[in-house]
Amino acid sequence: MPVPDRAGLKIVHIDVKDIRFPTSLGGHGSDALHTDPNYSCAYVTITLENGKQGYGLTFTCGRGTEVVVFTIRALKKFVLGKNAADIFADFAGFWRAITNDSQMRWIGPEKGAVHLAVAAILNSLWDLWARLENKPLWRLLVDMEPEELVSTIDFRYITDVITKEEAIKLLKSKQASKKERVKYLLENGYPAYTTQVGWLGYSDELVKQLCNKYLNLGFTHFKVKVGLNFEDDYRRCSAVRKHIGEDKFLMVDANQAWGVNEAIEWMKKLAPLKPMWIEEPTSPDDVLGHAAISQALKPYGIGVATGEMCANRVMFKQFLQSGGMQFCQIDSARIGGVNEILAVYLMAEKLNVKVCPHAGGVGLCEMVQHLQYWDFASLSGTMEGRLIEYVDQQHEHFYDPCIVENARYIAPKLPGYSTQFLPETLQKYAYPNGSEWQRMFEEGLFSPPDEAELANA
Amino acid sequence: MPVPDRAGLKIVHIDVKDIRFPTSLGGHGSDALHTDPNYSCAYVTITLENGKQGYGLTFTCGRGTEVVVFTIRALKKFVLGKNAADIFADFAGFWRAITNDSQMRWIGPEKGAVHLAVAAILNSLWDLWARLENKPLWRLLVDMEPEELVSTIDFRYITDVITKEEAIKLLKSKQASKKERVKYLLENGYPAYTTQVGWLGYSDELVKQLCNKYLNLGFTHFKVKVGLNFEDDYRRCSAVRKHIGEDKFLMVDANQAWGVNEAIEWMKKLAPLKPMWIEEPTSPDDVLGHAAISQALKPYGIGVATGEMCANRVMFKQFLQSGGMQFCQIDSARIGGVNEILAVYLMAEKLNVKVCPHAGGVGLCEMVQHLQYWDFASLSGTMEGRLIEYVDQQHEHFYDPCIVENARYIAPKLPGYSTQFLPETLQKYAYPNGSEWQRMFEEGLFSPPDEAELANA
Repeated sequence: MPVPDRAGLKIVHIDVKDIRFPTSLGGHGSDALHTDPNYSCAYVTITLENGKQGYGLTFTCGRGTEVVVFTIRALKKFVLGKNAADIFADFAGFWRAITNDSQMRWIGPEKGAVHLAVAAILNSLWDLWARLENKPLWRLLVDMEPEELVSTIDFRYITDVITKEEAIKLLKSKQASKKERVKYLLENGYPAYTTQVGWLGYSDELVKQLCNKYLNLGFTHFKVKVGLNFEDDYRRCSAVRKHIGEDKFLMVDANQAWGVNEAIEWMKKLAPLKPMWIEEPTSPDDVLGHAAISQALKPYGIGVATGEMCANRVMFKQFLQSGGMQFCQIDSARIGGVNEILAVYLMAEKLNVKVCPHAGGVGLCEMVQHLQYWDFASLSGTMEGRLIEYVDQQHEHFYDPCIVENARYIAPKLPGYSTQFLPETLQKYAYPNGSEWQRMFEEGLFSPPDEAELANA
Repeated sequence: MPVPDRAGLKIVHIDVKDIRFPTSLGGHGSDALHTDPNYSCAYVTITLENGKQGYGLTFTCGRGTEVVVFTIRALKKFVLGKNAADIFADFAGFWRAITNDSQMRWIGPEKGAVHLAVAAILNSLWDLWARLENKPLWRLLVDMEPEELVSTIDFRYITDVITKEEAIKLLKSKQASKKERVKYLLENGYPAYTTQVGWLGYSDELVKQLCNKYLNLGFTHFKVKVGLNFEDDYRRCSAVRKHIGEDKFLMVDANQAWGVNEAIEWMKKLAPLKPMWIEEPTSPDDVLGHAAISQALKPYGIGVATGEMCANRVMFKQFLQSGGMQFCQIDSARIGGVNEILAVYLMAEKLNVKVCPHAGGVGLCEMVQHLQYWDFASLSGTMEGRLIEYVDQQHEHFYDPCIVENARYIAPKLPGYSTQFLPETLQKYAYPNGSEWQRMFEEGLFSPPDEAELANA
């Protein structure tokens, strides 16, 4: 995979938009700590001198999107005027420059709003690269030589777990059989699980209907939100277990609701319902807490899953090292783009932890399918115990939405990273000036935007 | 300490300013990763209906301050219109509300730019409370009943190390002897160490001059920056050791320059110079890495110090639990204000780790003296092995600057948290429109501000 020729690849424009969907109106996506999310994103469009564009986004939950959008504006200076070919030729160097500016790193480093902003920019650059090569992102990654793929990763702070040389060796060991697995993916897709049977805001009747719906669609793994009230959790999980039967899989997700000891006690009491994992039992920063919970729940056959709010590769490294994570739920837009995500996959492979990406929200399903496809073809070489989360929301806004059939993600075929919005979505849901938002403000469905939210408009 | 009466205490205005000092021009503050900082801050002024004001800041390094300023604007909605007395009456509840808004927490949570923004706001509220009580902040804290002080803390995610009840018990055990220690503080101050003998940008001759200067001022503890080049480090540290003699203390600070194994190897080779601690040997997020380094260096008598970039109380909890931190360097403006800092002090006391606050930058010395005074009077009851960092820069901009005499911080006496700027500082150093910045732009000393930096002006 040669880096593209430099001609015409100067980055001449970066546009960023605050896009919000009024999902709180339907109670979709509600969990123990995020009771009323408006699924949103900061959406970046990068334009080259030759007119070609790359599209990238970072998922957000409504309020706060304005901060990520503003931060992207503050990061433009690290990208504008550069030649995209030069970025791809030393992608790790570019990554280090944008994440570790000597002054700006103080306000991270490599975490929170700035890292979300970096993710949107990096995602747009990977989308651009794939488009320039006329390939879906997963094929771009799969077709790279191991040395080339690894050259995009900054190994600072992780060499005690994996070095560049070890990473290359892991990838080389799977090179010979790569083609067969690509063929398998194209013919069979990749297994998905559903999170849509048990959001906290849903009624019992709706839970039952949804179990039946997703069983009929071929799903075998069902995730339920828990954490606010034990009796309610037990009742809803029992109902799901009854509806799906003993041969299917139940996962539960507390979205950080508990302290460490509380998590252990709560889950011991849910153990008779045989959940396969407990997701986000406590603070996403608590490596030692997750390790303690993992150890306590191991005798009950319950694994710990986390990652959607894991700040960066250094935090992932510790979750993987400590035994605090049996299922590694990378998110495609929280850590610093594909470059840093590849580092996490490589560490997970080295330490024998299964990656089951976080998805849902806005565009996350679209992105993670590419990553997991690459993992199967080039790195882990197996789907055993691995699944991609699937939530059937917000896909209609994308030019190249993910397709899930018979509970499997079908191979993306169009060039890029699948996150380009349709023009009418931008026109309707740009916040606060899109036509749908203007209508909803007028109808009193939402309070008008505040000073900061107006500043990016 | 009764919460003040509500009359006139409605918060009617919040102002936030981007204040930057051109410290990069002199090489002050340069270290392995922050090679050219312009010491800066986001500066908040909160105004009550009765006209009284509170002042708070969060330290930054130049670029990126605009993001923190913007984030403070986005957080105004959680503060404006509230009555300050109601906030103080349920300070933990207010803290939870501003740090864990159901939508906004996604862009943190409790870390990075949003948490720095929260810190500036919370610091201004504590300054305001102390002013309303007509006391310096440390006296406000010392005079609080244990139950009242603890009521300001959110214990979520830390109860596996300390509960509210244990915290009250720790404080109660020191109540009887508090008055004596207050008297001692007023008469003797609190010991300081200097970081000013060995910034990386300084010449050998300057290092020697500064050692002599600070020895003459009575200092016994000297910190030197390391991490870029071993030979250079060894030479400079040897020189400092020679100048200060064997009876004084040398600390070294790598500012996150190394990987875990590299840190261990580098420090073993510096061990003959008897450094008391190695500060920030690796990523500030790497709890397990710091624990490994601590264990490896223990036989050499070298402790590990870290904290200035530790994201929140959950990260501090783990550093304290794991043995990864022998010196806990809380920062007054990175984590969520005094409320969260108190939680860290309480955990450190419970787990027998010494707190030696990070200071320097802008306003950090002014703030941490109050915290450490409180710790001695009300919590640890000892100064043994504890010191406050001191850097003699940017104090002249404050209305009530810290005073260090004979290498000891003298008790602050004016009401508040000591971080109110003088009017001429705001006029000169507001970025980018202050008179000094306008002059420096005209003289070509700095590039003009970018789009985002202009947006808050």
